[in-house]
Amino acid sequence: MNAPRIAPPPEKLSLNTATVKAQWRLDEIIEGCARHGIRGISPWRDQVAAIGLARAAQLIRAHGLTVTGYCRGGMFPAADAAGRQAARDDNRRAVDEALEIGAPCLVLVVGGLPPGSKDIAGARRQVRDGIAALLDYAQPLGMPLAIEPLHPMYAADRACVNTLAQANDLCDELGDDGLGIALDLYHVWWDPELFGQIKRAGRKRLLAFHICDWLVPTADLLLDRGMMGDGVIDIAGVRQAVETEGYAGFHEVEIFSAGNWWKRPPDEVLATCKQRHAACC
Amino acid sequence: MNAPRIAPPPEKLSLNTATVKAQWRLDEIIEGCARHGIRGISPWRDQVAAIGLARAAQLIRAHGLTVTGYCRGGMFPAADAAGRQAARDDNRRAVDEALEIGAPCLVLVVGGLPPGSKDIAGARRQVRDGIAALLDYAQPLGMPLAIEPLHPMYAADRACVNTLAQANDLCDELGDDGLGIALDLYHVWWDPELFGQIKRAGRKRLLAFHICDWLVPTADLLLDRGMMGDGVIDIAGVRQAVETEGYAGFHEVEIFSAGNWWKRPPDEVLATCKQRHAACC
Repeated sequence: MNAPRIAPPPEKLSLNTATVKAQWRLDEIIEGCARHGIRGISPWRDQVAAIGLARAAQLIRAHGLTVTGYCRGGMFPAADAAGRQAARDDNRRAVDEALEIGAPCLVLVVGGLPPGSKDIAGARRQVRDGIAALLDYAQPLGMPLAIEPLHPMYAADRACVNTLAQANDLCDELGDDGLGIALDLYHVWWDPELFGQIKRAGRKRLLAFHICDWLVPTADLLLDRGMMGDGVIDIAGVRQAVETEGYAGFHEVEIFSAGNWWKRPPDEVLATCKQRHAACC
Repeated sequence: MNAPRIAPPPEKLSLNTATVKAQWRLDEIIEGCARHGIRGISPWRDQVAAIGLARAAQLIRAHGLTVTGYCRGGMFPAADAAGRQAARDDNRRAVDEALEIGAPCLVLVVGGLPPGSKDIAGARRQVRDGIAALLDYAQPLGMPLAIEPLHPMYAADRACVNTLAQANDLCDELGDDGLGIALDLYHVWWDPELFGQIKRAGRKRLLAFHICDWLVPTADLLLDRGMMGDGVIDIAGVRQAVETEGYAGFHEVEIFSAGNWWKRPPDEVLATCKQRHAACC
C-alpha cells in the first residue's frame, strides 16, 4: 500500500523536552539540541518555569531552534465551578507563555474524569466547553490550540479525547479557525480509523506530529514508551499519510521512559533520536 | 439520561474462573460457586485441562451451574502458514471442548501482531480470515463464536479487534449466523461510540456481558483489574443499555488482579462479587 520509505530530512527532527527531562534542565536541553544539530524543540511548562520563561525564550532564539509546540494546556474537567475557573485561568497563562516562547501551537491534553466521577460523557462535554472558551481567548491572539487525542488507557485520568475521530468532531463543532490536532503516534497507532481520520483532518488541522514507539511488552502505562524502531508502530507509514495531506512540519520525538531512556546519558539519547529518525521514521 | 438503577437479580451473576485462578483449581471454583449461590460459570481452557474436560463438565452439571461462555479461542494471526494451521487446529479443539462443556459460546480473543510484524492492517485481515474459517467449522456444530473486542492497549500482543465497531463490522462482513460479540466493559468503557455500537449490535449479537472495573491509577496493563464499584466505569448504565437491546443473559465477573484479589481468600472474593453485583451493577 505504501510507497518505499524515503528517509526524512534530518532538519525535520524536533525534541520534546520530556525525552531527557530526568537528566537535563531546559537550558542544557537547548544546548544539547544545538550541539547535536536537532533544529526543533517542544518545551514543557514546568521545565520552562524552572529556568524562567524569558530566559527560555531567549536561549531558544539564541541557539536558532524552532519551537514546534508548547506542552501543555488542557485538563478542563473539574468537580465544580471553582475548579473549572482555575483551569480556565491556567490555560490562559499557558497561551500567553506559548506566545512569548514563539510556539506554533499550544498542545491540549484535555483531562479525564473529575475525582469521584463515572460520567465520561459529562467530562467530554466539559472538555468541549473548555476548549470553546479557551479558543475565544487564544484565537484573537493568534495562538492555535492543538487537541491531542490520548490513548484510551488514559481516558479516566488524563484525557477523555481518545481518538482522532473525536478530535475531528470537536474541530467540526467548534470551528477549525485556530483549532487543530496534535497527532501523537503512541496514542493513535492502534486505531482502525487512523488513516481515514488523518485524511479527514487534512493539512489545516494537522498542527503537530509526535513520534516514539509502542513496546511489546509495555511495562508501565505511562513511563515505558519506546525509541523509534524498538516497537511495533509503522512510523514511516503514518508519516507518509500525514505528509500526503500536506503536513510539512517537524517530527517531534516524545519519549517518557523511566526504566530506560531517562537513565541513559542524554547525549546518547539525542544521538539515538537522530539515528533512529533517519533509519526508522 | 439513564433510569434509576434497579439492582440486578442475583441469579444473573456468573463467575469467570480467572477471577480466583490463583487460589483454586476448577473443581474448587465450581464448589465455591455452588456454595455462594453463584449460578453461572465461565471456565478457561487451561483450568479445564488441569482437572480434565469430562470431569469439569460433569462437576458443572452436578452442581447445577450454567456455563456462560468458554475462554477462549482466537489468536489467529501468525507469521507463517504453519502457525495459522496450528491456530486453526487449536481453535477447532476449543469448539469441541465448548460443546462438551455445554457453553453457549466460544469467546474469541483474536490475537495481535505476529512476532516482528508492524502490519496491524494485515493482522486484522488474518483475523477476519481466521474467524471465517472457524465459523465454517463451528456454525454447523451449533457453537456460536463471540468476538471480544480488547482494549487498545492490547492491540499489539493480544487482540487487534479493539472496538465494538470493529466487531460489528466483522459480523456484518461474515454474517452473524453463529457469530456475535462478547462485550467486556473493561475493554470498551472508554469508547465514545459505545452506546451507539451496543444498539447496532442488538440482541442477536450480544452473546456475553463481562464486568469488572477500571482502577485509577491502574498499576499493570494486564493484571490490575478492579472489583465492581472500585473504579470509574458506569457499570449500571451499560448494563441498562445492553438489556434495553434485549440481552437477558448473565453478568460475568472477570477480574485479573495479581496484586489484590488473587491474594485474598477466594471465599471472600466470591462474597465480594455477589455484594458488589447487587450494589454497583
